[in-house]
This record gives sequence, C-alpha cells and structure tokens, in this order.
Amino acid sequence: MNWYIQNGKESDVVLSTRVRLSRNLKGIPFKTRCTKEELKKVFDTLKEVTPLLGYNLKFIAMEDIDNLTKQTLVEKHIISPDFAKTKVPYTAIIINDEENICIMVNEEDHIKLQVFTSGLDVDNLLNLAIEIDEKLEKLVDYSYHEKYGYLTACPTNVGTGLKISALVHIPGLEMTGNLNKMLNIVNNLGMNVRGVYGEGSKAEGDIYQIANNQTLGITEKEIAKNLNLISQKIIEQERIARKYLAKNSLKLEDKIYRDYGILVNARRLSEEETIDLLSSVKLGTDLGIIKELTDKKVAELILYTKPANMQKRIGKELSVIEQEISRCEIIKQIVKED
Amino acid sequence: MNWYIQNGKESDVVLSTRVRLSRNLKGIPFKTRCTKEELKKVFDTLKEVTPLLGYNLKFIAMEDIDNLTKQTLVEKHIISPDFAKTKVPYTAIIINDEENICIMVNEEDHIKLQVFTSGLDVDNLLNLAIEIDEKLEKLVDYSYHEKYGYLTACPTNVGTGLKISALVHIPGLEMTGNLNKMLNIVNNLGMNVRGVYGEGSKAEGDIYQIANNQTLGITEKEIAKNLNLISQKIIEQERIARKYLAKNSLKLEDKIYRDYGILVNARRLSEEETIDLLSSVKLGTDLGIIKELTDKKVAELILYTKPANMQKRIGKELSVIEQEISRCEIIKQIVKED
Repeated sequence: MNWYIQNGKESDVVLSTRVRLSRNLKGIPFKTRCTKEELKKVFDTLKEVTPLLGYNLKFIAMEDIDNLTKQTLVEKHIISPDFAKTKVPYTAIIINDEENICIMVNEEDHIKLQVFTSGLDVDNLLNLAIEIDEKLEKLVDYSYHEKYGYLTACPTNVGTGLKISALVHIPGLEMTGNLNKMLNIVNNLGMNVRGVYGEGSKAEGDIYQIANNQTLGITEKEIAKNLNLISQKIIEQERIARKYLAKNSLKLEDKIYRDYGILVNARRLSEEETIDLLSSVKLGTDLGIIKELTDKKVAELILYTKPANMQKRIGKELSVIEQEISRCEIIKQIVKED
Repeated sequence: MNWYIQNGKESDVVLSTRVRLSRNLKGIPFKTRCTKEELKKVFDTLKEVTPLLGYNLKFIAMEDIDNLTKQTLVEKHIISPDFAKTKVPYTAIIINDEENICIMVNEEDHIKLQVFTSGLDVDNLLNLAIEIDEKLEKLVDYSYHEKYGYLTACPTNVGTGLKISALVHIPGLEMTGNLNKMLNIVNNLGMNVRGVYGEGSKAEGDIYQIANNQTLGITEKEIAKNLNLISQKIIEQERIARKYLAKNSLKLEDKIYRDYGILVNARRLSEEETIDLLSSVKLGTDLGIIKELTDKKVAELILYTKPANMQKRIGKELSVIEQEISRCEIIKQIVKED
C-alpha cells in the first residue's frame, strides 16, 4: 500500500511528512543558466547512476509521462506544480513503485531528492534521505563549498540544502478561532506556513504545510528537532481545541454528520466543496464521531476525489461537469467497499 | 393502517382529502350564544346517540384527552387547532379507531361531521359523510331552513354546510415559479387556498389546503365536482412542472439527495427545517429519484417528526432541544425499518 493512503504516527493531525535535499552537480551551472547540452549532461549522469542506487528506483523522462499522470503526482505532493508544467528539456524523475522516494532532475536544482511518509516520522525519514544522498554522493560530484555547504540555485536552500515539511490538518484550531495565533507562533519560530501545494498556494480543507526556513548555519539534526518540536506543539494545541469542541459535541456532531450526509448523497460536487466536506469528515473520523469510515477510506477519499487521480482511476479524461458527477460516484464506491 | 400513513389516489400531489358537514341542533342557540346548560344538552344528546351510529364510533369528552394527544390530532388534521385549546365546557369528539371519522361536538357548530382519506377521493368520501349524516339526522333534530338549508354559526357554511378540502404538495409549481399564478387561478375559481392547518395558518413544506368557498345555492354534488376539477388541474400543472424540472434532472437530483443526506444524518433538526427537507424528499420519492424510501415511510416521516406525534410515539414530554435530537433518531428508525 502506498504511503499516501496509509496511516502514520499522529495522523489525526499530521497527514504526511516530506524531507527534501537540494543538490547540484559540480562544474555545471545552476539550471536556469544551463545550456541545453548541460541540462542533457545532468539528465544523462543521473540516468546512468539510477540502477546503482538501489531501492528499485526507475529513471523516467518527464516527456514520457502524460499530463494527467503528472497531475496525479502533483496531487500526491510528489512533484511540484511548476515541475509538472515545465517546458525545460531533459527533466526527469527517479521514482520507486511505492512512490515514497522521488528525485526530481532539473527542477529548481539539478537534484531534488525527496522522501515521504504518512503521519509524522521526521527522524526515520531524514535517515532514509541521508542514506540515499550518501549513496548518490559516491556516484556523482556535488557542488559543495567549505564554508557555505551545499550550493543551491535558491539561496534559501544553501547550506544543508535540507527542507523538512509536514502537512497538518487543523480544523480544531480554525473552529475555535486559534488558527492565526498558532500560525503566527509557527512563523516566529522560524518556520514557513503555506498552502497544501507549497509556496504561494492556498490552504484548502484546513490543511497547511509547515516547513523550516533556515538551511544555513544549522545542522540537519537541529532542523529535524525543530520541526518535530513545532509539529508536536501544533498536534497538542489542535488536540486541545478538538477536546474543547467535543464538549459541545452535539453542535459539532451535527455539523460533521450534515457534511457527511452531503458528501455521500450529493450528485454533483466541486473539488473545493469536497475538500471542505472531507476536512469535516476526517475530523469526525479522528474524533470517533463518524463510525461509518476508516482512516484508510478517508485517505482514499482525499486522494481519489482530486481531479487527476480521479480521472486516472476512471481511465479517461473528463470535463469539469463530468468530474463533478464522477466524484460523487467514486465517493460512494469508496464508502461502500469492504 | 390509519388513513394518514396510507397512500391514496394521486398521492404524489394530493396528501389527503377531508369532507366536513356543519350541523346544529334545532331549538338550541349557536354555540357562542349557548348557556352552559345548553352546551351540556348538545353534549348529552350526541353522547346518547353515538352507540346508535355504528362505525365503531366512540364518544370522548375533550376534558378526558390530555394536551399532547389533542396536539397529535391537530397534527393529523383531525381536529382544529382552536378546538384543541378551547376552554369551553362540554366539548367532545366522536371518533373511530381508524380515525377516518371524527365528529367535533361544540366546536364552531354543535356538530362538525368530518371524514378523511389519504390521496384524492372526493366522491367516495362525500358518500360516506352523507351516509353518516343521514343516520344522525334520524336520531337528532337538525336546525334547517326551507330556503337557506342547514343553518350554521358562520354564514360561510350556511346552505349545504359542506366544506371539502384537499391538502396538496406542490413543490414543482414553487420551484418553477408558477405557484402564485396557480394559487390565483384557484382563488378566482371560488376556492380558498390556506396553510396546512386551515384558515390563517402558514404554508409549510410546499403544502397547501384547497377548499370550496361557496356553500349556499349550490348542491353537494356540484361542490364535489368543482373541487375534483380544480384538484385535477393542480395535479396536472404540478406534474407538468415536475416533468420540466426532471429534464434538468441533475440539478434537481443533487438538491433532493443533499436534502435527503442532511435529513438522515443531522443530529439536530427543527420542525421547520424538517418539513422543508421532507418536502424535497417526498418530491424525490414521487419522481422515482430517491429509491431508499417508500411512500409509506415518507408519510410516517411527515407525521412522526411533528412535535406531538413524536412525543406520543416516544412516550414522554420533551423540551425543544430534546425534540430536535429525538427527531433525528426517529428519522433514522423509520428510514431503516423493514
């Protein structure tokens, strides 16, 4: 079972964690200043070493992936929205079947090494990323500076080149009016708060991405420790908010079950309305209010109601109205299946 | 099975039909001008003749009926809201177990003879009323005038003393914006349009009461014929409206199923919201859109979500909030039962 429909630690609040390392090859300019030949060199170098890395990783050129499949990867948070749309030649991903490892080639940097897990599991995830990074470092020459560490295209990644992020579902903080206070605290502690698809994207369904800001003058372990600490703080506050809401549980139960009733009975649902309803339904399942759904089903509902994953599942492209109708049918399928 | 949870003819549009005859006893003033002794005389006279009428009718003094039960009768449209609240002494009902016959004693007139059926069935219903009326006329002396016919307390009933009314469910006319046009036509044809509880009451859940205006200078058969004609016209127009709506069926299905989803999943429902949701759900069942419910279940939902019938079913009095919670539980029970 792929990580994005599994349940990890603390998954009542943390949907998933990602560790991303930015690396560049020595002697080749950063991507934006590369010639076509230099981009090809990066592409060829990584294609060549992929079989030596292990983990059943496969090298796939982006031009060999159809647009719909690219979008399914965006919706799973496996590749960036910009990378899915890029017209830059010689782009690729190095990915395994479980899709918990995905290296983007010629995205912002030559190499964006990413590993994923459901729930919150920073330490194991960081160890896995470092393990792959060390293997890769034996096979290619990284651009590295004695004083500044790993050099990256964007200065916000210089140093460790490490970004750790967590997707948190915090409807309780939103409902109790504590959301902005919490997001300010997170910001002040040197973390970024963003929408579900990273920088510049909008928050949907009370889901936010928390990521470290600082990459220079700090060790990998410190970054991991900080992200862990702040995530634990968010989890704690979100759980307090939910407990408070559960005291006036009739109002909450009523709202949650009305949302559930609409979700499983509507004949047309937009993407936006669906994620709002699912936020409510996930809260209900996590609080034990909704007994009709398992955690796995909620994760499936979140994934397969997204446009690309839905169309991929059905096996054909659909107009927006067709999507709104099919979304309702898929919801019913998932809710009913054993 | 009592008439109010059965399905009659044309019951996709007509919920029920009532025939009511107003009669007064000879030599006794109209109720408002009666002394206590005269009221007692009416009461005693009718109590005495009840066993001779047949139909398993029972005479029950209003003071022997608790308030909750009186309200259940109001909600079933068997007695008037005013009669349930009256402090006038010597009031009574003469009623059978099926509750399709109910004579109010010392309501507006000495005798309000009423018969009921689900759906539209004016002719059979009128025959039954006349049959009972003829039996009663052999047992008591009616106040009758050669020229004016039966004399009644309110001049709008003089003559035949006959009122025929039908409760019609016309959400299609409402949704297509044709409601007011239709109600005007009905008015112009000499019929009254009122809310569900008769004169001065509000329309709820797209349900209206249609009744004849004229009682004098017209025969019983003519009144019945007119009411039949107008009801058929309303049925025809409502069905045309529904057919039109069903063409753009996705929007309608979506609305109906969202309402159904809320109805069966909410944890708190007010009386007002429930009747609006049920109006939508009844339309869905009548159109064959909703397959989860039978007509009988819809009729039960309409009856047992009303405050008094709900409390009577549960067997205890409930606060408004308790009613809002219990209403949801009863809805689930009725939806699930075989």
